[in-house]
This record gives sequence, C-alpha cells and structure tokens, in this order.
Amino acid sequence: MGLIVQKFGGTSVANPERIRNVAKRVAKIFDQGNDLVVILSAMVGVTDGLIDLAKQMTASPDRRELDVLLSTGEQTTVALLAMTLKSMGYPTMSLLGFQAEVVTDCNHCNARIVDIGTNRIRDLLEKRSIVVVAGFQGCDADGNITTLGRGGSDTSAVAIAAALKADMCEIYTDVDGIYTADPNVCSKARKLSKVSCEEMLEMASVGAKVLHIRSVEFALKHNVPVYVRSSFNEEEGTMVVNGDHDMERPIVSAVTYSKNEARITLKKVPDQPGVAAKIFSSIADANINVDMIIQNTRAGGETDLTFTVPKSEFKRALDIEREIAKEIGAEKVLGDKDIAKVSVTGIGMKSHSGVALKMFRTLADENINIMMISTSEIRISCVVEEKKAELAVRTLHTAFGLDSE
Amino acid sequence: MGLIVQKFGGTSVANPERIRNVAKRVAKIFDQGNDLVVILSAMVGVTDGLIDLAKQMTASPDRRELDVLLSTGEQTTVALLAMTLKSMGYPTMSLLGFQAEVVTDCNHCNARIVDIGTNRIRDLLEKRSIVVVAGFQGCDADGNITTLGRGGSDTSAVAIAAALKADMCEIYTDVDGIYTADPNVCSKARKLSKVSCEEMLEMASVGAKVLHIRSVEFALKHNVPVYVRSSFNEEEGTMVVNGDHDMERPIVSAVTYSKNEARITLKKVPDQPGVAAKIFSSIADANINVDMIIQNTRAGGETDLTFTVPKSEFKRALDIEREIAKEIGAEKVLGDKDIAKVSVTGIGMKSHSGVALKMFRTLADENINIMMISTSEIRISCVVEEKKAELAVRTLHTAFGLDSE
Repeated sequence: MGLIVQKFGGTSVANPERIRNVAKRVAKIFDQGNDLVVILSAMVGVTDGLIDLAKQMTASPDRRELDVLLSTGEQTTVALLAMTLKSMGYPTMSLLGFQAEVVTDCNHCNARIVDIGTNRIRDLLEKRSIVVVAGFQGCDADGNITTLGRGGSDTSAVAIAAALKADMCEIYTDVDGIYTADPNVCSKARKLSKVSCEEMLEMASVGAKVLHIRSVEFALKHNVPVYVRSSFNEEEGTMVVNGDHDMERPIVSAVTYSKNEARITLKKVPDQPGVAAKIFSSIADANINVDMIIQNTRAGGETDLTFTVPKSEFKRALDIEREIAKEIGAEKVLGDKDIAKVSVTGIGMKSHSGVALKMFRTLADENINIMMISTSEIRISCVVEEKKAELAVRTLHTAFGLDSE
Repeated sequence: MGLIVQKFGGTSVANPERIRNVAKRVAKIFDQGNDLVVILSAMVGVTDGLIDLAKQMTASPDRRELDVLLSTGEQTTVALLAMTLKSMGYPTMSLLGFQAEVVTDCNHCNARIVDIGTNRIRDLLEKRSIVVVAGFQGCDADGNITTLGRGGSDTSAVAIAAALKADMCEIYTDVDGIYTADPNVCSKARKLSKVSCEEMLEMASVGAKVLHIRSVEFALKHNVPVYVRSSFNEEEGTMVVNGDHDMERPIVSAVTYSKNEARITLKKVPDQPGVAAKIFSSIADANINVDMIIQNTRAGGETDLTFTVPKSEFKRALDIEREIAKEIGAEKVLGDKDIAKVSVTGIGMKSHSGVALKMFRTLADENINIMMISTSEIRISCVVEEKKAELAVRTLHTAFGLDSE
C-alpha cells in the first residue's frame, strides 16, 4: 500500500473500450488500498488532429491559442475516465492543469513546470478519492493555459509524483518496457528489466520514444522510481532506477535512432569572433533547440557551420538562418531533412574505451556514411542518411552483443 | 463607436471556412473603432457528439465530469477564432469561462451565473484587444468547470454585455431575426423588426429557439439592448427592446411551439394536504423544471395530477414519481412523450380579451384536442398531440392575422 501515480498514454485511452479497461486497472490498484493519482494523455491521434485543425486556420497558429486548443485533448479523456470510475462506484474527481496547480513558465507549446501546488490533490486523496489529472497541460502565473510539448504527459506524471513524494510512478504505454533497440526495427531486441536514469536520459534524448526526456530529468533530480509497463497486458516492465544498478553490465545497453531532426548548414561563414553567437542567438530566441553543432575550418578565413534542429522547427530555423546569413555575409544556407541520428548508450562506456571506434568501423563496414558525430560520457551518436537508419541500428545491435539468443 | 458584445452560434462557427467569415465580420466592426468582446458557441453538433461519447462510458454520466467534457467544445472554437484573428494582424486573446471570471453556482450542466469579474476583459479592451470568450461555460467558486445548459452561450453573451455595460449585444445566428412563427413550419411567417423583452421571454419559454430564455431575463433585468441577426447575410435582424415599443401593435405577435416536453400523470392521488408538495419536492431536488401542472378532482377523495417536464428529464422524472406514487399511495404513474405545446404570445393581449377563446375555437375547428392549458398575462399555451403541432401553428397564425401578404 502506498501512494502511486499512474500515467496512461494515448493508445491506452484511444477509445471508450480502452478507457473502461484503464478504469478497471485503476480500480484494482485502488481496491488494494493504495492512494492513486492517474495522469492521462489525449486519445492517440487527437493532438495531431487538433494541430491539423489549427493549420486549417493559419499556417503559423499563435502558440498561446494553440495551447488552448490542444489542452482539450486531455480534458476529454480525464472527464471520460472520471465519469467511468464514478459510474463504477469509486469516489473520483478530474483535475485540469490549472486545477491541479501545475504552474509552468509561459513558453507556450513547450512550457516547463516551475511549481506544483499539491493542496487540492492532497485534499482529495485524504478523502480517498482517485484523482484523475490531465497530463501535458498546466497554466502560467497569469492563468493562461500552457502545454509541455510532445510527450509532456510523462513529465506531468513524474513531476506530480515528485511533488507528492509518491512511492512509485507507473508509466503505462503501448510497449511493455525499455528495449535494447526498437523491436519494430530490430527483431533481436531484448527487454531491459532495469535501466539507469542516466542511460534513459541519453536514450530519450536520441530517439527512444518510450519516455519524455524531461520526465527522466525529473525522475533523476527528485529520485522518483519510474516503472514503465504495458497497459495491454500484465507482463513485467522496466524499472528506471536512479544511479548505478545491479544488472549485468554490458558496455552498451541500447541502440536507438531518431528521425526527428534536420540539418542546416551555413556555407562560407566569415571566421570572426561573435559570428557563432549571432547564428545561434536568434534560434535560441525563437525557442528552437539546437542539438549537434559542427564547424569545419576552410582555407581563406571562412568556415562551414552545420547544426541540427527538430524537424518540426526546420522551416522556421531555415528562415531565421537565411536572414542571418545575409547579415553576416555567409555564402548560402543549405538544409537537409533526410537524416537520422543513430546512437549507442551505456553506463558501462564510462569504464571502457574503443566504443566509438567500434561504432565507426561497424557503420563503415556496412557502407554507411557518417555525417556528424556527437558524444557524451555514456553515449555516442552519428548522423547518417535517413534511409540507412534501420540498417545501422540492426548492425550495431549485433556488433555490441545485444542480440537475443 | 462603442463597446459591442457579439455572439456567434454553432452554425456560424461550424467549420474553418465559417470561422474565417466570423473573423472577417469581427475585424470589420473592430476597424470601425468599436471595442469588441466576441462570445462563441461550440461548432454545431459537437456538444451532441460529446454527450454521445459520455453515454458510451455510462448511461448517467456524472454531471461535474460532463461539464469538463462539454466545455471543450467552446474551448476549441475560441482558440480557432483567436488564432485566425491573430494571423490577420489583430490583437486578440481567447478567454475560457474561468479566465473571464464567469462565476456560477455549482449546479452542473445547468448552472446560473452569479457574478462576472470583468477585470481581465477590461484590461484587454483597454489594450485594444478583441476579447474572444468561450460561451456556455463558467466556473463555480471552487474553480470547478460548469456549463449553463443548452443555448447557454446567449446567456453568456448578454450577461457579459450587462457586466460590461456594453452598448449592444448582437446575437448572430442561422436565422435572420425573430419571426411571427417558425418559417420552416409556417411559410407565411413574417420577420419582426422589434420585439419586447417580455414577449421574447414568453416566446423563448414556449419554444422560440432563437434566444436562450435566461439571456432574455438578463437583457430585461439589466436593460441590455439585444439585436438578433444572421451571420450569413447582411440583412436587418430583430431588436429585442426593453419595455413597450413603437411597432404597430397586433394582439398576438407570434405563434410558437415546442416539442421538448413530456407529460407525467399520477392517477388517483389521495386528496390530502402535503401530497402535492411531496410530488414536486423530489423533482425540484433533482433540478428538473416542471412547467405546467393540472389537478383534476375526482369523486372519492382522490385526484389525478398531471404535469410536464423537459423531454430530456422524462425518464429521471418518471423514476422519481414511481417511487413517490408508492409512498403516497397513488394508483399509478403514466407518461406521454408525444406531446407538443403551442403558444400565442403578444403584449397586446394585456388590453384585449377573448384571445384564449379564439385560440380554443380555432384549434377545435381543426379537430385538435387540447390536453392542457396554461396562460400568462401575455401568452396562452395549449398542449396538443405532437403530430398536430405544425397544423396548430399554421392555423393559429392565420386566425390571428399574422400571415404575410
């Protein structure tokens, strides 16, 4: 018995039948004597549908108003789940972001949680109510609705679990845990019974879609135990644990890939102090995240500068850089959306050398060209042609000894 | 130039194209130098769709949670209109019920506005923003979302106009004004250029669907000039004015009908003090509005008692009365959903007698049986068989000299 936060993703609440299944699952845990806070996403596809609707009105919808629109998705599912639990005889109440006092900054469409006032949730829990909270959404200090960006419901769940000092945050999704690679791409992928927050953080940052990266940051920072499992079966999932863990330690734990980025290159940038700052300050002002950056010095006091941005921000970033290229006298701006980032991650890398070399050789042997490289202490990522991403994943999975028997 | 509140109904915002037309209409009035608050309904059909969705979860959805669900309809349209106006270069902001400080009682699904805090709207108007407010919704003192019942957006509009002391409240709808009868039923119906609040109130209470009855109450109480017109053309509409007005005064201004009610009869009710109170107190506790009541005394200290309730509450009311019939020893409870209420309304009735007699004779001449009768100072209503409603309207329209040339 304890205080459990459960989060159900978009496929778990995709239709009335599945919402009923979620209700049964929730009721079972509640009947065991646990206090429960349930965080929901929108029905799968709904957020995309709403973005489409907005785009029918205008190519660049105002972000504040887009948040007002998008937040209806989770509002719908929490109402449906709460009325279902009520009809089953369970005391329950839905709370929207502003009602649950999920306070964020005012960076619409990609807001960060700054505070969670837990009074209302605690009051309801004390009355033995099941509290159903809309994920993905919050409000800023002026009461404007904000959303946390794609996958934000995970972050809602872990942040609320942290604020409540919950005993466990269970993330129910359509996969039954964290795998050594995407099983859809790599048939030999294996499920991990445990993974460290640090590894999860690196994996999420490079394409493992199971958990929203900011949710893992929260879990790491606030020491929230996170358990990822499927809402469609009763199989064991994956525990995301803080710090090192006792699993058999391979050098590489997982191979991931991401097709969500695009590459922008400024050709023949004058090699002067302050130029790079100029190139990236407007991008930062527009709240576009730059991931990798590479600068090649050329002859004649000019350099080429290449960086990656989320594919969804590609056009905005390209427009901004075209302006800046004029200002600073760069020759031209090139863009490439057909790229993928393939990464190997493992806490074991800390104590092993030669992982990068092995990765580069493995890709070279398959004739896969590496366009960009970035590394962290426990991860190595290479940008390759988009069409070769799956081949790269499978080859690396085998090379690093991750294949199942 | 002045402060104008404009309300657009569900057909006016039915799709992106129509929302764009609303935006153009709003922009035109704004460009003339007016301050503007725009109230929107949900897209036509959306509220019904949401109710259907709720009914897929449970036959009797919890009313608090139903309000959370239903309020997404207006949330969607205000976001879409605001982002459209923004993209056209107009300063604007959407406000949901709680953000516009539309405070209601906590009678979910049929809440009444108790206060409107106008600070945020006034702040925005002072900055020359077009304020787009979600109709139909508010919040109670604890921040729970409430809705005002069917047609509630009219009430939102008039209440906000009253709170702001607006110069005009324009109700844009899919008809171009108030008619002497429903033109779909009576081809000879004429548009009224003016109608008094009192008449409008009576007409709204008996089936004229153009304005929500509570909106007219607000208009009457707070002296808000209301102008009903079409959002699809530029034709003159109908002014709803307070008090007597200068139009040529016919005895009857309009013939209306309603099929929204059902009849419940308790047979052989013991004729004792306190029995009627018992019969209606549970109905009142369940927040079901009773309209007409008739009691016929029979021989032997027993009476039959008949009353009407909204068709949507028929089942609930029937269940309640069946319980009560047992308690008080009434013989049985009968119900009839196939009824319609036909009404003639006119401020001119105040100074004319014989209107009731003429109505009864006209119906009798057409062989239409009158089941129940109710009257006010300026209205007479008869309950008839549902299938004879249209015939009754047309016959009365002619009999009271309302037909167009």
